[in-house]
Amino acid sequence: MADSIVALSVSDVRFPTSDLRVGSDAVNADPDYSAAYLTLRTRQGHEGYGLIFTIGRGNELCCAAIESMAQLVVGRDLDELRHASGKFCEEIMSDSQLRWLGPEKGVVHMAAGAIINALWDLWARIEGQPVWRLVCGMSAEELLACLNFRHVGDVLQRDEALAMLRALEPDAGARIARLEREGYPAYTTSAGWLGYDDAQLSSLCRQAREQGFRAVKLKVGRSLEEDLRRCRIAREAIGTDMALLVDANQIWEVDEAIDWIRELAVFRPEFVEEPTSPDDVFGHLKIKRAIDGIRLASGEHCANRIMFKQFIETGAIDVVQVDACRLAGLNEMLTVGLIAAKFGKPVVPHAGGVGLCEYVQHYSMIDFVRLSGRLEGRMIEYVDHLHEHFESPCRILDGAYMPPQVPGFSIRMRESSLQRYAFPDGPEWRGRRVRTG
Amino acid sequence: MADSIVALSVSDVRFPTSDLRVGSDAVNADPDYSAAYLTLRTRQGHEGYGLIFTIGRGNELCCAAIESMAQLVVGRDLDELRHASGKFCEEIMSDSQLRWLGPEKGVVHMAAGAIINALWDLWARIEGQPVWRLVCGMSAEELLACLNFRHVGDVLQRDEALAMLRALEPDAGARIARLEREGYPAYTTSAGWLGYDDAQLSSLCRQAREQGFRAVKLKVGRSLEEDLRRCRIAREAIGTDMALLVDANQIWEVDEAIDWIRELAVFRPEFVEEPTSPDDVFGHLKIKRAIDGIRLASGEHCANRIMFKQFIETGAIDVVQVDACRLAGLNEMLTVGLIAAKFGKPVVPHAGGVGLCEYVQHYSMIDFVRLSGRLEGRMIEYVDHLHEHFESPCRILDGAYMPPQVPGFSIRMRESSLQRYAFPDGPEWRGRRVRTG
Repeated sequence: MADSIVALSVSDVRFPTSDLRVGSDAVNADPDYSAAYLTLRTRQGHEGYGLIFTIGRGNELCCAAIESMAQLVVGRDLDELRHASGKFCEEIMSDSQLRWLGPEKGVVHMAAGAIINALWDLWARIEGQPVWRLVCGMSAEELLACLNFRHVGDVLQRDEALAMLRALEPDAGARIARLEREGYPAYTTSAGWLGYDDAQLSSLCRQAREQGFRAVKLKVGRSLEEDLRRCRIAREAIGTDMALLVDANQIWEVDEAIDWIRELAVFRPEFVEEPTSPDDVFGHLKIKRAIDGIRLASGEHCANRIMFKQFIETGAIDVVQVDACRLAGLNEMLTVGLIAAKFGKPVVPHAGGVGLCEYVQHYSMIDFVRLSGRLEGRMIEYVDHLHEHFESPCRILDGAYMPPQVPGFSIRMRESSLQRYAFPDGPEWRGRRVRTG
Repeated sequence: MADSIVALSVSDVRFPTSDLRVGSDAVNADPDYSAAYLTLRTRQGHEGYGLIFTIGRGNELCCAAIESMAQLVVGRDLDELRHASGKFCEEIMSDSQLRWLGPEKGVVHMAAGAIINALWDLWARIEGQPVWRLVCGMSAEELLACLNFRHVGDVLQRDEALAMLRALEPDAGARIARLEREGYPAYTTSAGWLGYDDAQLSSLCRQAREQGFRAVKLKVGRSLEEDLRRCRIAREAIGTDMALLVDANQIWEVDEAIDWIRELAVFRPEFVEEPTSPDDVFGHLKIKRAIDGIRLASGEHCANRIMFKQFIETGAIDVVQVDACRLAGLNEMLTVGLIAAKFGKPVVPHAGGVGLCEYVQHYSMIDFVRLSGRLEGRMIEYVDHLHEHFESPCRILDGAYMPPQVPGFSIRMRESSLQRYAFPDGPEWRGRRVRTG
């Protein structure tokens, strides 16, 4: 029987994380991790959930953007959305008036992504499968129909994409079995926030090693002296065989990045993340050419597939950090992932925040099974924080993400959390002096 | 006596332009030209006005974004804002939580721009000067303090910028006198909307020629056959000595743009605008290399100075179309303008819409007097539409913008228009069936 979307509702949920300086880095000094959370409902009573992660002020704009886009999904027939999701994505991103606010960037793009991901959640719940298994079970042709080739056809053509997807189809089962057995490797960022002192840093790094993580990531860029000291502490704690990652969160100018990275090279970082503006493809290229041998990563603020296309094709970055809430949902992540696979660049998704770990684990499992077929150089970021607010939080075992088994996109939040952290009227916020906005 | 900002208010104003197919192009089929309009008030009773131009749905998100940023300007001391506007701009764009929604792109960036431009309007009103004269009267050092070098230092350094500004200081008076005498050359887009038929096109082109415009612009990209026919009609109407511009509004893929532009080359367009995605620096470079000799223009959707920096430095575009509402206000326009001047690229601002002509005339006059010192290859877009809603609309004489004489940024709207076109409750909208959003 035909079903259709009949309602979309949005909640503004914020966690007062700035109290603890959790999440502090060179640019983001005092984040209050937040979510613009949405629920889709169908006539037959099915529900799908999605969210945009933000770091506090402005979360209300993401909620409003989702509401402004509701008209593009409410009333739509479910079968039509299900079987033509690539087409739907292009449609929701190219509303002839809303697209002026981007195009395909900022809050309208994030809102499109949250709606698209909620549709995936809904679809997977109806099918009784976790999203990654649902996608891994699709034919190459069905997967192709999910991709968005608009304005990226110069680096990836439809027939080429289909050939790539077909080539990995036969062994998909073996890779699924491997994931079920071993999980997907993770690294942790929980150890290295700038707000943590040296003793905390050292003990958290040792703990990360014991927990089996592939790497630890340190926030850098506030002061070179401090960075050298903290990298030394981290390297001592993790030893020589575990990877060290550093993340400057866009703080540097291009020339400054070159000087600074040369100083940090002695600690052999596996990659340096966000050395400068996330919009600056040429700036990254200039840095790359000057720091021979050290790899650059970026993506958590990369606006869309068109920016990623350039970063990847030119070799301006080595590691592709797609974000489940910055891009327009799983479909654009898959498009970027296939471009990355073509150019042999590993995708190492951005995670942490609220729900990002839950989201991106699905992406990375699909990447391994259907897009790149590889694990070398790949891992998923992990931050040990706020998972308790989700009904089916991600599960880490021996430093690896274990494949989600519960139907959906793992993003449904607990009712009690939605109520307690509702902004600005939930019990956690009432009485706090907050800068609204 | 010290004064400070005590209030910020916002209005959602929309004009039902889609009724007439005014503004129709290959991507924007049915725009309702709109403005998120803001008023700043000081304790002493001064006011400053600013706006974000949008094309309809989503205007409410721009209004909300301005409101979310009000906390960053209300309560601030006026002298502090006045004498450190570059610093203030960096501050408003790097709010540690709001910047997550960009950074520096989309609605938060546009909102920052509207506030910054309202401060310029306020300041100019207090000084009793039009904005362009106020800026042209600043010292090189004062002008330098208005610029934002963040993440563009690899192509323009402070000392270099100062030297450039100083070099043009001595003759500024002569250029001001020339502007007062001759105005600033304009081209018109009013002739070439896709929604107009061939007879309309021909007669409007002839009219543009008679009115003394430097060039006419045609919207293209819906069908090659139609474009060839319309370009021929336009060329016949304007003759061989007047320039023809064509604008694809991002419709083409990179390869498609190359093929299409080669076909249109016979009509000798002075430039081809927005051939593909406004984010695609490398795509533009690929097109440029394949269409030897034809110039590309882009910018109305270029998110910020970091994107412009790349387009300009690499030569991916030849003509720099800054937008007064897309960039973060006059300060970022000046920064982009100085980078363009360094690389010898003309700035030809995007205009039309609601209030863009009023805004950018100030920019271009400053460009001539203080940034580039040149008029060659430069002009301001003009669209003959919606000017009647402004208290001091721009004034065109013999195809040239005449310098504004009234204090401020020319952007204050008439009270009667604000009320009549208030969305969704003003008399023009009540009773209409609108897709809200």
